Amino acid sequence: MSDIITAAMVVIGDEILSGRTKDKNIGHLADILAAIGIDLKEVRIVPDEEDEIVAAINALRVKYTYLFTTGGIGPTHDDITADSVAKAFGVPCEYDAKAYAMLEASYATRGLEFTEARKRMARMPVGADHIDNPVSLAPGFRIGNVHVMAGVPAIFQAMLDNVVPTLRSGVVMLSATVHCPHGEGVIGGPLGDIQKANPDTIIGSYPKYLDGKFWTELVVRSRSAESLARAKGEIEAMLAGLQPAS
Amino acid sequence: MSDIITAAMVVIGDEILSGRTKDKNIGHLADILAAIGIDLKEVRIVPDEEDEIVAAINALRVKYTYLFTTGGIGPTHDDITADSVAKAFGVPCEYDAKAYAMLEASYATRGLEFTEARKRMARMPVGADHIDNPVSLAPGFRIGNVHVMAGVPAIFQAMLDNVVPTLRSGVVMLSATVHCPHGEGVIGGPLGDIQKANPDTIIGSYPKYLDGKFWTELVVRSRSAESLARAKGEIEAMLAGLQPAS
Repeated sequence: MSDIITAAMVVIGDEILSGRTKDKNIGHLADILAAIGIDLKEVRIVPDEEDEIVAAINALRVKYTYLFTTGGIGPTHDDITADSVAKAFGVPCEYDAKAYAMLEASYATRGLEFTEARKRMARMPVGADHIDNPVSLAPGFRIGNVHVMAGVPAIFQAMLDNVVPTLRSGVVMLSATVHCPHGEGVIGGPLGDIQKANPDTIIGSYPKYLDGKFWTELVVRSRSAESLARAKGEIEAMLAGLQPAS
Repeated sequence: MSDIITAAMVVIGDEILSGRTKDKNIGHLADILAAIGIDLKEVRIVPDEEDEIVAAINALRVKYTYLFTTGGIGPTHDDITADSVAKAFGVPCEYDAKAYAMLEASYATRGLEFTEARKRMARMPVGADHIDNPVSLAPGFRIGNVHVMAGVPAIFQAMLDNVVPTLRSGVVMLSATVHCPHGEGVIGGPLGDIQKANPDTIIGSYPKYLDGKFWTELVVRSRSAESLARAKGEIEAMLAGLQPAS
């Protein structure tokens, strides 16, 4: 069994907390990390306030293998992620020469002014590496174990595609789903016994409610195929022994 | 100006962090709180682990006026929210007599066994009040400023409808949206100046990317209609002075 690789995410933005924008990045990151065997353990959504961003980054970057952030790296006054990350690491936030030159050239080619606002997108904590942005050029960055990416989903996803090959992958968590036609109240007791008897699995029970009826999706997770199969078999045997769902 | 009422949310569940379930409750709570003038300031998504749940609840309940949780109040072994909240408050978690009697009667009426698993749904921190659940009966609960609700969206929404009338409402945050045909790089500088000149507004800039073009949604928020109108007017004047978007 290889070591467990963990991750956390900080979503930065008043627009998520106000309800105006519905986040689409949490689910995407969760899916991608699950696919490569990294455990997403915590997500925080924080406002565009430096103290809150710094506190979240410093709480999470020491606790998990990787930290990913989305949002707040554009050119406007409310884009304070680069400054906040620099502050969290205790380093200056300055124009990155490579990013500055790249953006300057791009705007020149397009006949557009390289405004003070646009220059903001070249600012990074000193010592950060670029995360390439194939959609709109202005890069994200990595410093230490913290990966700072855009909030616009198309850009976030493209940046994340560039980050994934740089991550250590864990042993992929295998999962098996068992459809249970009963509500949780019927199977909660025996399911708890099966969980106790299979400590190297994680058995999740996800209640569903549709058209006035409850059913349950049971998901067994394990890094061992053998343990997964054993627990799944015990659940199926347990379900087979129950009365049909009313 | 009335006082500011703040809130935070803890979403409890491995199924969100694994990507298997995409959260629908954060956006709903954000919308409802915005409508009644309560500022949602932070959200944390935590796994089904007691220490993590307790830490999140204790960090947030002292910092904000209200705390709302979703998930982990069903009958199975991975439903540990009631125990975790009790631990956070330093009180025992016991069968609530009213909830127990209500559930016992309901299962008896339906000719169903009141299993140990189902009995778990009557457990609450001692001293908690019920949050009625019109969908599936088993109540949520409130203790102190913490409101503990179900994770299934239909049940969460119904419980929240019962909670809203009990909350102190703030002065509703007014908002006005200005469509900006330019990317953030064009307007970032002057927009920052307008923000500085209008300190009792919050001006948000939300970049949009569609079909290879950037545009920006500008949102002015204020609790004062007068301040809102002034800042909105300044933004519109700024935009009118720009070249048409290419």
